Amino acid sequence: MSVVKLEEYRERIRKELDNAVDFWLKYSHDTIHGGFFTCIGRDGTVYDELKYVWLQGRQVWMYCRLYRTMDRFRKPEILEAAKAGVCVSVEIRPRLPAASGKGLSSPPPTRKRGENPGKTPKETLFRVFHILAPGDLSREATDPRSHSVVFFPLWAETVWSRIYGGRGTRLGLGGPPGVPRGKVSPQQLRSPDASRGLVQQLTDGRGQEVVHRYRELASWCVRQILQHVQRDGTAILENVSPEGAELPGCQGRLQNPGHALEAGWFLLQVSAEQGDAELQQTAINKFVELPYQKGWDKEHGGLFYFLDVDGHCPTQLEWSMKLWWPHCEALIAFLMAYSQTQKPQLLETFSQVYEYTFNHFPDTKNGEWFGYLTQEGRVTLDFKGGPFKGFFHVPRCLYMCERMLDDLLANTKDSA
Amino acid sequence: MSVVKLEEYRERIRKELDNAVDFWLKYSHDTIHGGFFTCIGRDGTVYDELKYVWLQGRQVWMYCRLYRTMDRFRKPEILEAAKAGVCVSVEIRPRLPAASGKGLSSPPPTRKRGENPGKTPKETLFRVFHILAPGDLSREATDPRSHSVVFFPLWAETVWSRIYGGRGTRLGLGGPPGVPRGKVSPQQLRSPDASRGLVQQLTDGRGQEVVHRYRELASWCVRQILQHVQRDGTAILENVSPEGAELPGCQGRLQNPGHALEAGWFLLQVSAEQGDAELQQTAINKFVELPYQKGWDKEHGGLFYFLDVDGHCPTQLEWSMKLWWPHCEALIAFLMAYSQTQKPQLLETFSQVYEYTFNHFPDTKNGEWFGYLTQEGRVTLDFKGGPFKGFFHVPRCLYMCERMLDDLLANTKDSA
Repeated sequence: MSVVKLEEYRERIRKELDNAVDFWLKYSHDTIHGGFFTCIGRDGTVYDELKYVWLQGRQVWMYCRLYRTMDRFRKPEILEAAKAGVCVSVEIRPRLPAASGKGLSSPPPTRKRGENPGKTPKETLFRVFHILAPGDLSREATDPRSHSVVFFPLWAETVWSRIYGGRGTRLGLGGPPGVPRGKVSPQQLRSPDASRGLVQQLTDGRGQEVVHRYRELASWCVRQILQHVQRDGTAILENVSPEGAELPGCQGRLQNPGHALEAGWFLLQVSAEQGDAELQQTAINKFVELPYQKGWDKEHGGLFYFLDVDGHCPTQLEWSMKLWWPHCEALIAFLMAYSQTQKPQLLETFSQVYEYTFNHFPDTKNGEWFGYLTQEGRVTLDFKGGPFKGFFHVPRCLYMCERMLDDLLANTKDSA
Repeated sequence: MSVVKLEEYRERIRKELDNAVDFWLKYSHDTIHGGFFTCIGRDGTVYDELKYVWLQGRQVWMYCRLYRTMDRFRKPEILEAAKAGVCVSVEIRPRLPAASGKGLSSPPPTRKRGENPGKTPKETLFRVFHILAPGDLSREATDPRSHSVVFFPLWAETVWSRIYGGRGTRLGLGGPPGVPRGKVSPQQLRSPDASRGLVQQLTDGRGQEVVHRYRELASWCVRQILQHVQRDGTAILENVSPEGAELPGCQGRLQNPGHALEAGWFLLQVSAEQGDAELQQTAINKFVELPYQKGWDKEHGGLFYFLDVDGHCPTQLEWSMKLWWPHCEALIAFLMAYSQTQKPQLLETFSQVYEYTFNHFPDTKNGEWFGYLTQEGRVTLDFKGGPFKGFFHVPRCLYMCERMLDDLLANTKDSA
């Protein structure tokens, strides 16, 4: 594939990222009560003043990341936007996990039944994003005496210790740390996914002492993720037993290609950090190529939301819909896999996902992306922000892809 | 509309009912552990041995009702089938409400977010169906000394008192009896719906003493249902405050035409029992015609699952899908409204719903009905039984419609 093609991708991705940032800066900020509106319609109208708390944290994290690492977003308004969101998040902190506040809502009730049989993973996810956000901000504050620098690392550690029971004493005992067992306690793929993201956040750019402190958890996350490789390596199953065995029935047979692909790029990051070629190979074969092969709709294109590994009909009503976020994860996963290996087939697949994604999800009229398509590719829910869609998956994907394309193009020029 | 047409409807409905009963008798019975399989695929294959407890109760209730009131189902195998299900239900009784047992599952986690923000209504529904089922059976047992006659009324009363705090002392105080208040406690349309069904069941065919005991609850149910008439009588809203006011945001604006139609025929039954012409008029105008006018898809036909009264996009991913059960409720509601009033327009609409329903939902190859169609009318989940679809809505609808058509045709002949 030509350099011209990579430059074309980068150009489009850069524009889409600018566009997404503009949209959320323009429509999501509550200038009266603080925080971010999360229920935003097709044209930017706020259709509900409810603010989903977990999306507040994600939005802060995203602003911080853009401010810290991309020159064109290192602007006062991005930092101020992040701070405004953090103030709201801190305000509701003492009421964790069932947080509520002025116009704020705790995480939405579970809607993906098959992938979340209990309550705990959702609460964990919620808290994880509240660590991620201030963690990033604390390293960003321009004034070293500012509130954020002093306070947020403490806060992150406090929430962390609530989740993981402090000092990581339960780690290495074979169980997922801090996830209490219910009557049925499957291990869900997204739970170690989230923990892995958290470790990365807490250790990113920190000293060796911090890195060492969380190393065991990082290894635990990888082990947990790898337990989802089932059926002699032919499938990634969304739910497995805490011992890593397949569970009976629909719950055990469930596949969520988007989660598998997200796990794939997490594993690729770890393999790169640790120089682990075997892990890289597993990540690509099992968590990038396999979910794509199984999850791609050969008839209409796009990734299915849920599938049953034995070909039964999933019981999730939305199983055949095409959601924006699995496509975001696929773009990141394939571009990262290609960046690490330079194998042309991986870039070919990235292109296929890219074409589907950019032909279906962006709203060329009002900006930002639609989130929900029918199996056939028609927009069926037209809001830009809702209970599960905030300022997160779209900008994170575009940000990561732009950075990877920067590096790929720089390397191409170096070698030319 | 001609008598021939009504006879044609009855013929088809009778066949569909026989067909549904055959399907569940053939495929759903667990002859080893007892009870009913509830996860049944397109062709009758059990795709998960999980048994949803609330569907056990519904299936028992349905068998009892058919056995008790329709000559052609007054067969030993129907009674035995019902008893086999009751034994399983009784076995798990002591663990109410979070019941579990061998291969049994408590009610599925909430999936219709907008219509069930808390946990309580689902638990109430679950328990209600466990009263309904044995209540019916206890009046059916052929042997007066049998276990069921002695035991089940006691059981029903026990569960009843758990739900309603015994003796109805909380009735008339303005609050929904026995539904504990959460942080946000909207009143959902289906909660009084279920209570109303329960009162009907507990009083049906009983002496005046029993009827009197539950009269206040019956009136409370009607008052609660009527609180969902909002916006100057132009809309039925799914969630209202306990005081009967509209709630803010998406939750407050949500409409569920299927629930409104179900409430409609409940109200029509009450109005007939009480000779209340005003209630009948309200039921028809507000709970039968209005939800149909708002909920019918003018482009593709069929009833939407959810709608926002202000025309925003609902946040429920399945909002535009066509589900079997709202169509069942619509058939009952329009045929009952026509039976009570003889207004031709009501029969016209019944015919329209009938055509859509019978052209889309029945599986002419394997029997029974599909439950889930895309907006365009394509089958998108092909199982016959799942977490929310059991031996209940389809046979209840066919049973009630057949009975109403019997009466209509008998009256036509009488008057001829």
